[in-house]
Amino acid sequence: MNTLSIKTVAERAAQASRDVALADTELKNRLLLALESGLVASTAELLAANGRDAEAARAGGMAEHMIDRLSLNESRVAELARAVAQVRALPDPVGEISDERVLDSGLEVSRLRIPLGLIAFICEARPGAVVEAGALCLKSGNGLIVKGGKEMAQTSAVLQKIFAEALAEAEVRPEAVTVLPSLGQDELKELLTLSETIDLVIPRGGEGLIRFVSEHSRIPVLKHFRGVCHLYVDQGADVDMALNLLVNGKTQRPSTCNSLECLLVHQDEAPAFLPLAGERLRELGVTLKADPAALEFLPQAEAAAADDWGREFLALTLAVKVVADFDAALEHIARCGSRHTEVIATRDKGRAGRFLRQVEAGCVMVNASSRLNDGGALGLGAEIGISTTRLHAYGPMGLRELTTTRFIVSGDGHLR
Amino acid sequence: MNTLSIKTVAERAAQASRDVALADTELKNRLLLALESGLVASTAELLAANGRDAEAARAGGMAEHMIDRLSLNESRVAELARAVAQVRALPDPVGEISDERVLDSGLEVSRLRIPLGLIAFICEARPGAVVEAGALCLKSGNGLIVKGGKEMAQTSAVLQKIFAEALAEAEVRPEAVTVLPSLGQDELKELLTLSETIDLVIPRGGEGLIRFVSEHSRIPVLKHFRGVCHLYVDQGADVDMALNLLVNGKTQRPSTCNSLECLLVHQDEAPAFLPLAGERLRELGVTLKADPAALEFLPQAEAAAADDWGREFLALTLAVKVVADFDAALEHIARCGSRHTEVIATRDKGRAGRFLRQVEAGCVMVNASSRLNDGGALGLGAEIGISTTRLHAYGPMGLRELTTTRFIVSGDGHLR
Repeated sequence: MNTLSIKTVAERAAQASRDVALADTELKNRLLLALESGLVASTAELLAANGRDAEAARAGGMAEHMIDRLSLNESRVAELARAVAQVRALPDPVGEISDERVLDSGLEVSRLRIPLGLIAFICEARPGAVVEAGALCLKSGNGLIVKGGKEMAQTSAVLQKIFAEALAEAEVRPEAVTVLPSLGQDELKELLTLSETIDLVIPRGGEGLIRFVSEHSRIPVLKHFRGVCHLYVDQGADVDMALNLLVNGKTQRPSTCNSLECLLVHQDEAPAFLPLAGERLRELGVTLKADPAALEFLPQAEAAAADDWGREFLALTLAVKVVADFDAALEHIARCGSRHTEVIATRDKGRAGRFLRQVEAGCVMVNASSRLNDGGALGLGAEIGISTTRLHAYGPMGLRELTTTRFIVSGDGHLR
Repeated sequence: MNTLSIKTVAERAAQASRDVALADTELKNRLLLALESGLVASTAELLAANGRDAEAARAGGMAEHMIDRLSLNESRVAELARAVAQVRALPDPVGEISDERVLDSGLEVSRLRIPLGLIAFICEARPGAVVEAGALCLKSGNGLIVKGGKEMAQTSAVLQKIFAEALAEAEVRPEAVTVLPSLGQDELKELLTLSETIDLVIPRGGEGLIRFVSEHSRIPVLKHFRGVCHLYVDQGADVDMALNLLVNGKTQRPSTCNSLECLLVHQDEAPAFLPLAGERLRELGVTLKADPAALEFLPQAEAAAADDWGREFLALTLAVKVVADFDAALEHIARCGSRHTEVIATRDKGRAGRFLRQVEAGCVMVNASSRLNDGGALGLGAEIGISTTRLHAYGPMGLRELTTTRFIVSGDGHLR
């Protein structure tokens, strides 16, 4: 990128992130407003750079769906500016006081919500994700260092300029958001060792990227891994509702991590439910991979292979299995689920409660579509990802998940 | 330990930890009661094994303060049983529902508090820490796998038996607490790669141990690093109170991480405060290492070397520095602090507030002794350590910090 070492670049970002950490809500909102204006004002420049990136990527043989994610156009940029405005409108979590108590000794103890510090966001060629991450990090008082794919190098350079101008306008050191144009694998590895400087790494992209980052990072990593989401149709479930949850969960946007990958049906419901489901899904172009018991009711299905259980298809394909009972469904999910989103369709309150308590996932749902596991749909306002590990944050991560708390204590000369 | 691989041992512990995760409060309390009884009933056996460990350690040339930490006696075991009883009396964080809301669509969204899963506790030869970690993990619904130092191998074997019997009595699979008698460095490294099976690693011991674990772990690590704690005596502070905070923070138990290592004094207070402080600390046997400005008022002090700033003495030694003003104190703490505990003695509300907001540490205090940064003293009931990193938990970690939350969602056929 230039002659500075990665370590120096990260240290400057960490220094500058102190400005954001100490900024009040009004200043952070002004900063986000400047970012919106900057996106709008620089649209032509951004699109020109992005066009060159997309052209080079196409010439280099990049897959069409990747080029789609890389490409911006006027309405997409306007949409990003609106996303920044939405983050601006969200309440500021920083500075919130909780768990206040006065101990018997008179010592006052509470927790103060504070930013995490400097966050490294490692993604592929997705300029939109960079803008969203920037808005969320700034509103939550964090600095951000972005490593995007080399396929978006020219776009990144313009984004860096837009962020820097917005920060400077709000009198925050521009290094608080540092968009690295590109980084070799060795430089990325070096970045991932800077545990004294960077507080959290968020990788976003394919499984390969996430594994690489997890493998090499000495900094805590918040993983957004695979989504192998199940819908279990319980004994006595409302068949129409279950059918709607299935169709919405599988077909509304099959390439997303909160789409359904596997249907489990109680054996008593299979004879009535499966033929209906099979017909609806066939009309919608879904390929079914069924276990022997389900195959009986699904003449159009293929036989499922052993590795179809726990598989993330990310396409119009669904594994289908008949289970003996509720416990067998739980057992299958425990073995094949990916701790992302799990759904039960049921009319039984007891089993609904057991499902919510016992099924291991960041988001567990009763009679609702898996597609609703999303920061926006669940009322968080926006999300930076969906964590599938239990430490720090589990499930969709909004502004609050980009902060932590520290203890603040006031006494009157209290001693031990 | 036996013919099973580390991986298999960890997988069995993870399986068994499901029993604890799903146990209700009453069952967990019964389990802890059985643990207390077991400790009391097996005291003789435990002391005999521990005596053999201590003898071997002494013959092997272990330092006396390490042998002290390794050694148990009757009153120490009784104290451990009481510590288990205290954990039993604490409220159970698991199952708590928070952040309940009903979205405009009627979708009900809330968070359910759940255990983290299986925790690995890596320590040196400290049997007491193992019992406390076991009690805290069980009450918070977690499984535990313990790797203690080889110097406590015989003690560990008896502890393993006591835990197993208590678990079996409560009909929980005994592998839910697995105390490994000892582990070679290669086996420990292997344990630290099992990120699919173990959810969190807590190392407790010297800096070398913590660095080794951080270096090799592929599992999230909660670090309890150095405590380089400062007391800043502000302009206009109550001199008597500041003196008491200083003496208590430095001398009450100097080997602990929440003891003071550095005194910062506002230049206007130095002429009055430092001679008094120097005299009191001299009487208490404290060696002072002062900067040139402080030396003027401290004839008995040595000149501080460059590496005395930010140094964890863990002994009756204190670095002393005169600062020009409040901002200089903040700047020194930002450069030399270790994010553990920082204290200001002040009468000024504005500066007290700024100190609480701006100083970076897991626990920031106004007019209270640094020695009060402790789970017990701050009202958490008990602690498993003091985290000096901001992710997941920051500051003293009690039962709640051994849990996380997941989203639970209930709808009526809600779709996206």
